[in-house]
Amino acid sequence: MLEGKTVQRNQSSRAQRRLKNWAAVFLVIAILIGIALVPQLNKYGKAGAMASSENEFMYEKSIDVLVMLLIGFGFLMVFVKKYGYTSITAAYILVSLCLPLYMLLRPYLWGSASNLLITNISMLLYAEFAAASLLIAVGGPLGRINTSQYLLIGLLFTPLYALNEWLLFSGVLIPAGVFLDTAGSVYIHTFGAYFALGMVIMLTTKKQREMKVESSKGSNQFAMLGSAALWVFWPSFCSALVPIDKVPLVAINTVLALCGATLATYASSTIIRGKIEISDISNASLAGGVAIGASVANTTPGWSMLIGAVAGAISVIGYTIVQPRLQKLTGGVDTCGVHNLHGMPGVFGGLVAMALMTSPLWQLAGIVLTVSFAVTMGIIVGFIVSRMGTKEEPYDDQEEFSQSDENY
Amino acid sequence: MLEGKTVQRNQSSRAQRRLKNWAAVFLVIAILIGIALVPQLNKYGKAGAMASSENEFMYEKSIDVLVMLLIGFGFLMVFVKKYGYTSITAAYILVSLCLPLYMLLRPYLWGSASNLLITNISMLLYAEFAAASLLIAVGGPLGRINTSQYLLIGLLFTPLYALNEWLLFSGVLIPAGVFLDTAGSVYIHTFGAYFALGMVIMLTTKKQREMKVESSKGSNQFAMLGSAALWVFWPSFCSALVPIDKVPLVAINTVLALCGATLATYASSTIIRGKIEISDISNASLAGGVAIGASVANTTPGWSMLIGAVAGAISVIGYTIVQPRLQKLTGGVDTCGVHNLHGMPGVFGGLVAMALMTSPLWQLAGIVLTVSFAVTMGIIVGFIVSRMGTKEEPYDDQEEFSQSDENY
Amino acid sequence: MLEGKTVQRNQSSRAQRRLKNWAAVFLVIAILIGIALVPQLNKYGKAGAMASSENEFMYEKSIDVLVMLLIGFGFLMVFVKKYGYTSITAAYILVSLCLPLYMLLRPYLWGSASNLLITNISMLLYAEFAAASLLIAVGGPLGRINTSQYLLIGLLFTPLYALNEWLLFSGVLIPAGVFLDTAGSVYIHTFGAYFALGMVIMLTTKKQREMKVESSKGSNQFAMLGSAALWVFWPSFCSALVPIDKVPLVAINTVLALCGATLATYASSTIIRGKIEISDISNASLAGGVAIGASVANTTPGWSMLIGAVAGAISVIGYTIVQPRLQKLTGGVDTCGVHNLHGMPGVFGGLVAMALMTSPLWQLAGIVLTVSFAVTMGIIVGFIVSRMGTKEEPYDDQEEFSQSDENY
Repeated sequence: MLEGKTVQRNQSSRAQRRLKNWAAVFLVIAILIGIALVPQLNKYGKAGAMASSENEFMYEKSIDVLVMLLIGFGFLMVFVKKYGYTSITAAYILVSLCLPLYMLLRPYLWGSASNLLITNISMLLYAEFAAASLLIAVGGPLGRINTSQYLLIGLLFTPLYALNEWLLFSGVLIPAGVFLDTAGSVYIHTFGAYFALGMVIMLTTKKQREMKVESSKGSNQFAMLGSAALWVFWPSFCSALVPIDKVPLVAINTVLALCGATLATYASSTIIRGKIEISDISNASLAGGVAIGASVANTTPGWSMLIGAVAGAISVIGYTIVQPRLQKLTGGVDTCGVHNLHGMPGVFGGLVAMALMTSPLWQLAGIVLTVSFAVTMGIIVGFIVSRMGTKEEPYDDQEEFSQSDENY
Repeated sequence: MLEGKTVQRNQSSRAQRRLKNWAAVFLVIAILIGIALVPQLNKYGKAGAMASSENEFMYEKSIDVLVMLLIGFGFLMVFVKKYGYTSITAAYILVSLCLPLYMLLRPYLWGSASNLLITNISMLLYAEFAAASLLIAVGGPLGRINTSQYLLIGLLFTPLYALNEWLLFSGVLIPAGVFLDTAGSVYIHTFGAYFALGMVIMLTTKKQREMKVESSKGSNQFAMLGSAALWVFWPSFCSALVPIDKVPLVAINTVLALCGATLATYASSTIIRGKIEISDISNASLAGGVAIGASVANTTPGWSMLIGAVAGAISVIGYTIVQPRLQKLTGGVDTCGVHNLHGMPGVFGGLVAMALMTSPLWQLAGIVLTVSFAVTMGIIVGFIVSRMGTKEEPYDDQEEFSQSDENY
Repeated sequence: MLEGKTVQRNQSSRAQRRLKNWAAVFLVIAILIGIALVPQLNKYGKAGAMASSENEFMYEKSIDVLVMLLIGFGFLMVFVKKYGYTSITAAYILVSLCLPLYMLLRPYLWGSASNLLITNISMLLYAEFAAASLLIAVGGPLGRINTSQYLLIGLLFTPLYALNEWLLFSGVLIPAGVFLDTAGSVYIHTFGAYFALGMVIMLTTKKQREMKVESSKGSNQFAMLGSAALWVFWPSFCSALVPIDKVPLVAINTVLALCGATLATYASSTIIRGKIEISDISNASLAGGVAIGASVANTTPGWSMLIGAVAGAISVIGYTIVQPRLQKLTGGVDTCGVHNLHGMPGVFGGLVAMALMTSPLWQLAGIVLTVSFAVTMGIIVGFIVSRMGTKEEPYDDQEEFSQSDENY
């Protein structure tokens, strides 16, 4: 008995030492990113290419998207009952790593584009989109890895995301202008979700495959808050980078897509399950925003509502029917069901945009490229991350947080 | 015993079948609204009457009001302890039904007005105001009806709200420009609250009249969050549709009205009750925003603070003294006390505006019209909705939501 | 036994009478402020000095800062387990007292400045900054005083804050333009924190010195929500009053400072404590925003990230190492650790700005002036407030709120 305790203590102190070492590694990385940004950003004193009023309009949207990142995605992930501290902390540190890292990397890929100077808010918005995709990706293995593993994923994901973005839009592979994805159905949502799907194959142990991910009324209500923050600010996500005169249409299209998805989610959840599942409401209602992203600036409100309704139904079908089968097939547990919320609705949104393009095959090519690149890279990154070990007690804050066993 | 169980199970499966059927009905309605919007909104590709910068300023306010709808009203209604899932879900589906429905209906009433094209954000804002009034209205019977009944209320309320708005402002009944209600003390708040008062007469059973509506520390804290979201974004609610050069004055008037109401609420709650009641703070503090709505663009900050203070006191008197008597009188339970927060302060705000008008009787006529139309229609709608049956277990998520009995 | 009960009841009814009397006093004060504002603000019908588009851009930032006040600071203080009702109520009533009071007082100090007319949103923003500093200050004695004592602090703090602001920026003491503090590292954060430090010396009893301030998973998650609201809207805090063309740079500097602080907080908490402490994450992550305030418009993103990282580390060192010693030294309990979050990082931010100034000694003088004035006034105000008595049961809502003993 006593011996067991000692062993446990030794193990736990070894685990703690490892946590400390990794924390120190990431502190050094953070400082290095900061230093690397210093010379590069000295030139940002120059005037940007955008008018200051444009910058101001975009500014508020960049704040709205920040709300979506930390409050929206952050609290949506709090639904795991005993894992709330880690979920929010993961959102904090991932956003904090991804934003500067993306800003550091992007000029090397898209160096010439003058609208990427940091004096333009668009740079911040592109970085926020990368962070959104990253938060989607970690929703897959959520609860089964520890904080340093989240950070390692962030470190590897960010350049891969930028690379996929570059392949789609720079004109090197797909001709410029033939791939339509205004608000990222494909390059943000689909990429993040299929990256997750790749990772979870490598980041699920046999024991974890049998476990139920528990939620509680409190944790689900926080998740609903995160969901509501995503819902209301989604129009800013979609309209952030469109020309000013398109903003009203894009905003109303986005709102109606979300309305359609919400009503379809409510109906589908009731019809398929017999009772309403609160996590359907908090997740699938948002599928309208995911799916409308590609075509949001090129369609009308009526169509948007219908596209949203289909996306909501697809998402509920994902949670109820597809996910259990996919999990059996791949062996990977997708904790947040990101494939149902961001994966299938994202692909659907990308496909819808085919109807609007003169050369729809390029649109299809972009989707196929994104899905296959994301899955492949996800598997590789998942493998690398799995080498760092796995959480002893999955879906539980206790291993890394003090006071996490206090009563709720 | 066993037989009882079977009966119960049969009943419950019959109830479930009914829920499924209604869900299917509303799915069809959602799709029909979407289809009906398709041709109408094709013309929205045209340029609107507003400058794009005006649209942009209005855009951010439309997002702020969305926050008020889903996070503000949505979470304010979470105060009912075991009913949080339904409260938020109701906010989701009601907003999702009301916004497109209002956008579909309004052009038939106000067809000529070019500023109602969907390329102008003002259309979205008018629809959001309708949704706000609807969420106020369902605060009355909250907890005693199920989700399909909320949706039926939404379906019937939305055209009636638009009709009342049209009677007040189109010039057909009351001459244009003689009724002052800039931010809806009367046409949004008073209408919603007295509609609720009408409905609850029909939607309260004898058994429900005796029940205590329970709250808990957790549910009240979520309600405080909803309240805070309403407080901080209220200036956007009030200034959304005023000319740009009036925005600063309107914003500051709104803030000071809320300050006055908050301090008066704190003082009145302490003086009348001896102890502070948290639901007074979360509700009555907002009465300043309700009351200032009518005159917000025509008064000064000092007066706004005083008007707000009176409104806060009125609201606490409503919760402590008026509500129990009114309930005894009408037999209807007003779960959220919307009459105290939106009803009396709304009428007070409308009456205050009489002092600013050259023909105050028209102002009075508009208030009387709104109150009587709202109560009458509320009773009729309440009767129709009551035909769909009543919740077996009031103020409880369990009937419609899975996992709702999990520990908090 | 029975006698004891009667005594207790008498005491408690005497306590209640005192609460009622104080509530009445503050109601009268609120009405007097409103009346005093009436004549003064009549002149606000005049056109302001700012263009309406500038006003509009500033408008949204004033709303963002309101979110930081009520949702940000309000919920960050909810971390005290049994004290959530009081924390949020205190935020409500303090903001509601401070905003109008500041607007009333400021024109007497800075009367000539035309950009302080209430038709300019800048007036509202200056008042919101005062309220932010006030909420920081009450974070020190939080939990050990009752609501009327918070209000008394607000009443005394507001003019003292305005006075310090005037000493720093009006040119009477320090020449205009030589003290750099764009977003208030010193005049907002440092002032509030050292005022708190002064107050807690007077507002901590011996018994309270030994007590542990308890938190729970629920209360900490609400605190994380408050923290996230502060994080995401901080760029609006920093850029609210800078010229429009500086906004993008200021926003990105602020975001990168927060990123640096968040990563450094995560690493420092893990390294120093062995486990992550959630209250480090919710608090110290924000230290980057505090520290960057002074130089935010005069530095670059790379430097901002590094400044933020240092501030995050300083803040964690504050929570883990400095606070226990300081508490032993002064005997005052700093409930929220505002000295660690706002005090030391604020001073650090002020000192960093020395490197940017041609006459750094004036910068130093401003910091020294602020710290010493704040501590002195804090001690005096703390003494006055302590004369009103102390809470019988610290860190507990029960004394002043009904239903506060309901299960969570």
